[in-house]
Amino acid sequence: MSEPAIVLGPNQYGKAEVRVVKVTRDSARHEIDDLNVTSQLRGDFAAAHLVGDNAHVVPTDTQKNTIFAFARDGIGTPEAFLLRLADHFVSSFEWVTGGRWAAERFAWQRIEVDGAPHDHAFVRSGHEVRTAVVVADGADRHVIAGLRDLTVMKSTGSGFEAYPHDRYTTLAETHDRILATDVSARWRYARADVDFDARFASVRAMVLEAFAEGYSPGLQATLFAMGRRVLEAHDDIAEIRFSMPNNHHFVVDLSPFGLDNPNEVFHAADRPYGLIEAAVVREGVASPAAAWEGIAGFC
Amino acid sequence: MSEPAIVLGPNQYGKAEVRVVKVTRDSARHEIDDLNVTSQLRGDFAAAHLVGDNAHVVPTDTQKNTIFAFARDGIGTPEAFLLRLADHFVSSFEWVTGGRWAAERFAWQRIEVDGAPHDHAFVRSGHEVRTAVVVADGADRHVIAGLRDLTVMKSTGSGFEAYPHDRYTTLAETHDRILATDVSARWRYARADVDFDARFASVRAMVLEAFAEGYSPGLQATLFAMGRRVLEAHDDIAEIRFSMPNNHHFVVDLSPFGLDNPNEVFHAADRPYGLIEAAVVREGVASPAAAWEGIAGFC
Amino acid sequence: MSEPAIVLGPNQYGKAEVRVVKVTRDSARHEIDDLNVTSQLRGDFAAAHLVGDNAHVVPTDTQKNTIFAFARDGIGTPEAFLLRLADHFVSSFEWVTGGRWAAERFAWQRIEVDGAPHDHAFVRSGHEVRTAVVVADGADRHVIAGLRDLTVMKSTGSGFEAYPHDRYTTLAETHDRILATDVSARWRYARADVDFDARFASVRAMVLEAFAEGYSPGLQATLFAMGRRVLEAHDDIAEIRFSMPNNHHFVVDLSPFGLDNPNEVFHAADRPYGLIEAAVVREGVASPAAAWEGIAGFC
Amino acid sequence: MSEPAIVLGPNQYGKAEVRVVKVTRDSARHEIDDLNVTSQLRGDFAAAHLVGDNAHVVPTDTQKNTIFAFARDGIGTPEAFLLRLADHFVSSFEWVTGGRWAAERFAWQRIEVDGAPHDHAFVRSGHEVRTAVVVADGADRHVIAGLRDLTVMKSTGSGFEAYPHDRYTTLAETHDRILATDVSARWRYARADVDFDARFASVRAMVLEAFAEGYSPGLQATLFAMGRRVLEAHDDIAEIRFSMPNNHHFVVDLSPFGLDNPNEVFHAADRPYGLIEAAVVREGVASPAAAWEGIAGFC
Repeated sequence: MSEPAIVLGPNQYGKAEVRVVKVTRDSARHEIDDLNVTSQLRGDFAAAHLVGDNAHVVPTDTQKNTIFAFARDGIGTPEAFLLRLADHFVSSFEWVTGGRWAAERFAWQRIEVDGAPHDHAFVRSGHEVRTAVVVADGADRHVIAGLRDLTVMKSTGSGFEAYPHDRYTTLAETHDRILATDVSARWRYARADVDFDARFASVRAMVLEAFAEGYSPGLQATLFAMGRRVLEAHDDIAEIRFSMPNNHHFVVDLSPFGLDNPNEVFHAADRPYGLIEAAVVREGVASPAAAWEGIAGFC
Repeated sequence: MSEPAIVLGPNQYGKAEVRVVKVTRDSARHEIDDLNVTSQLRGDFAAAHLVGDNAHVVPTDTQKNTIFAFARDGIGTPEAFLLRLADHFVSSFEWVTGGRWAAERFAWQRIEVDGAPHDHAFVRSGHEVRTAVVVADGADRHVIAGLRDLTVMKSTGSGFEAYPHDRYTTLAETHDRILATDVSARWRYARADVDFDARFASVRAMVLEAFAEGYSPGLQATLFAMGRRVLEAHDDIAEIRFSMPNNHHFVVDLSPFGLDNPNEVFHAADRPYGLIEAAVVREGVASPAAAWEGIAGFC
Repeated sequence: MSEPAIVLGPNQYGKAEVRVVKVTRDSARHEIDDLNVTSQLRGDFAAAHLVGDNAHVVPTDTQKNTIFAFARDGIGTPEAFLLRLADHFVSSFEWVTGGRWAAERFAWQRIEVDGAPHDHAFVRSGHEVRTAVVVADGADRHVIAGLRDLTVMKSTGSGFEAYPHDRYTTLAETHDRILATDVSARWRYARADVDFDARFASVRAMVLEAFAEGYSPGLQATLFAMGRRVLEAHDDIAEIRFSMPNNHHFVVDLSPFGLDNPNEVFHAADRPYGLIEAAVVREGVASPAAAWEGIAGFC
Repeated sequence: MSEPAIVLGPNQYGKAEVRVVKVTRDSARHEIDDLNVTSQLRGDFAAAHLVGDNAHVVPTDTQKNTIFAFARDGIGTPEAFLLRLADHFVSSFEWVTGGRWAAERFAWQRIEVDGAPHDHAFVRSGHEVRTAVVVADGADRHVIAGLRDLTVMKSTGSGFEAYPHDRYTTLAETHDRILATDVSARWRYARADVDFDARFASVRAMVLEAFAEGYSPGLQATLFAMGRRVLEAHDDIAEIRFSMPNNHHFVVDLSPFGLDNPNEVFHAADRPYGLIEAAVVREGVASPAAAWEGIAGFC
């Protein structure tokens, strides 16, 4: 019996991290869009891999040029910009059957001068980054919005109790601790015609509210509460996924120094950290595998 | 018609980045193992998410303790160590049906003193990091070895030509350029009883050789050559995946200064960069989806 | 003639990056302080270096403990906290004649729930980090406040012209470009009894205003304008130093695609970048070298 | 009495992190130099700061071009390359009275193919980075070589005992621990006509040997032993400075799990870390302040 042939499996390629800044200067009051865009094509690229025939290899340099050229017409929401790119590449090259386009969007706010927002001077705002992904799979378009590095902390209103014990368990139960995490979330839209900016603002606010409100018996429960709130509010969001570290804050033992420490002084540790990852979905609604392929770090 | 219920989708949790160093001191000639280990459990954790019932939530702190306790018996290869962890968690808690255990392994070599390797003093060596992942899915065990940040460069013997042109294409063809990348590779073993250290050394050497040898018509061709060589040599490797940036080195135009530049002076750019990702597989051999879920950055 | 003896030169040691979080819970409305503190002692530590005699080596672990213990009484401004640490160490150990204490302070704001700021849930805010340094040199105390990573951008109102040309000059003059930088600033107080929080807010606002206002003929001029504004407004600030990259934004040439680009589409480059560094000082006022000494020659 | 005028203090500016790769292709056996170069000028730049007059401001872009143009003639040692740059700028512009030029040099080794080193394919080697700084101060040239991120570990042969105790001391004494650090060192040459490559190799080897040999009663003693060995061996090195973290490795308490831990299983902590900094010098030999000045107060 002969060995099976060695062949090409799933693949994609493109240009990563194109840092494009678009200034809209229709009036003296400028607007800026600041994005980090990645373009990756999927399709028939076997010959390039197997025999070095580049006839299908749209250069990554061309993909970069296209991003800059398309920005000339304005960027708008990152989701809409990525959809334009997806449509262009899939329609322009018959062997390109899909791809993955991703963007990070950095937030800026106007500098205040004499109490008034300036026309063309800006300061980076916020600690978090807005993300967007569009996956094209033939005629299908999957739009996944998101954010990362939304760092939050509760100084009380959190605990962790009634967990299983085995011979390796030394953790003490607590009903009053610091709960801190950096929220990474990605949510898939059921449609492509939503108001992406409004939805983003709403999801961000709901995630923060769900984190703040009530008592958290564990990061898993907080994660699900965030997701449930978002899905209950927005029919056009099909599912949402989270990846959240548990940024441990340990109560420092001050008793050797004759001091008490009623949950006031904490050491913020780096590593190791808990890591909680889950999807919140609608029962019976299938999640298209193609939509989530190639998204770093999501389960 | 009522709305579908909002439910928990795929999920996993655990302790990430446990930095464990094991010193083997059976003799005056010490050995060290330096790992960064992540443990994540999969199974029935719905109650924790939905109603805050932690009865199934093996604390991430316990997972950390287990890693340290198991290291007391020795670490050995990272793959073998992760397999021990996987078996322990799946067999110890009936609701844990699987999980994902990952490690980075850092390389050290003995310091030379008077020409002789020292017994217990070491220096970090190498630029790359060895990686390992074990995924448990019920009784199945998927073992994925790998490496990242293996940075390589060819100063000639590479080109990029005969690619498609459209209105956004400005790239010039070349048959002599620098080719540079940081190889990230992950390969899945068909069995769990291989000599992991020997295989790692062999795959690393083959990847380097395939990069060095011959003329590269493009990074895709180089990638496939790497993978083919590995699969041809090792029956016990089922498939191999690569993610490789094209670290652009641009020839600097020195003509304004009255100088030629026959491919001698280059600017090494940071962003954007090309990004080439592909799997090399055996025809007709299915790739278990569960094995690759949750591995950051791989398509 | 004999060789000069080999001796110990300038030195300091301590514990770096103690991540302390203090929760003030006097009422249901909690306050949080989140600092990264470094303590380094200077004095007579020759015996430790020369003959391994640790009798003077206050353990770095003790320095860490002291930071946590002092936080039990509250942190207040980072400058005041560092002054307390400095006084403690200099007064507690006769061979400790000075030292350097530094802090980074991370900004948090209350999460809004139903339009009201929450009592104990917070979100990290701002892109920049507040810094503070206290240097003790015998009885002297130098207090240096600062900030870093205050990222700003002007989409117009900036140029660079009338510079010298030599055979290596290819840069085109412009009177309309993007000016972008990450402001790092450190200012030294003439006294230790100022309202550090109010001063910090004022300096930050002035730096932003000076960046925004008017036309910038170059980053040097903008830097000096920032510093002059601060020194003119605050007699208790003796001097201010800046280190600012010129984060280049290049106009993309879209003409190959049949498009114009009237300063609308830019590529934000990473490296190389301009780097502008200067002190703005009061004429005739000496700057104490000890205040600015950092570490042993690693500027 | 009038206020003192607000004036410009110490300043420098230039282009940072020019990533230049030089391929020497005199024969089929290529050589590569891979550097990250920063150029900063000092001199009379007051007008640019005070009134926006750029007549003295040699563009940072020109400085970048000069680096690339000079690389056309070959790079050689980083120290020699920086000396060429220094001489050029100081001699070309009368108002440039000095400056600071710095480089990082990345190490590459030839890929082995069939047991033989390849002619033009290379792999990044080593964990550490070689550094070089040339400071010009009028006609003076100060040459400072160095390295950073030379990560070393001893699994025994180190302790810390007989240190002072106060009310905040909880550390236990030990005469057997892991000692681990990332060596950063910078040494100043007494002359500019030394064999820089040979000296670098020698200093690196001596630093490693001094770390490995004998029992270390503390990182301070190890640091001084490193420096003394270097200065004793090389008359042309005037002084050497070190900055070294104490990368703590904590013995994990395995007793809750019924296990002993005779210094075999350690947790490698990230933060906080000890930080030991000192200069080793020749008695009576002055250290020129200008040589070590880095930037405007940001040590």
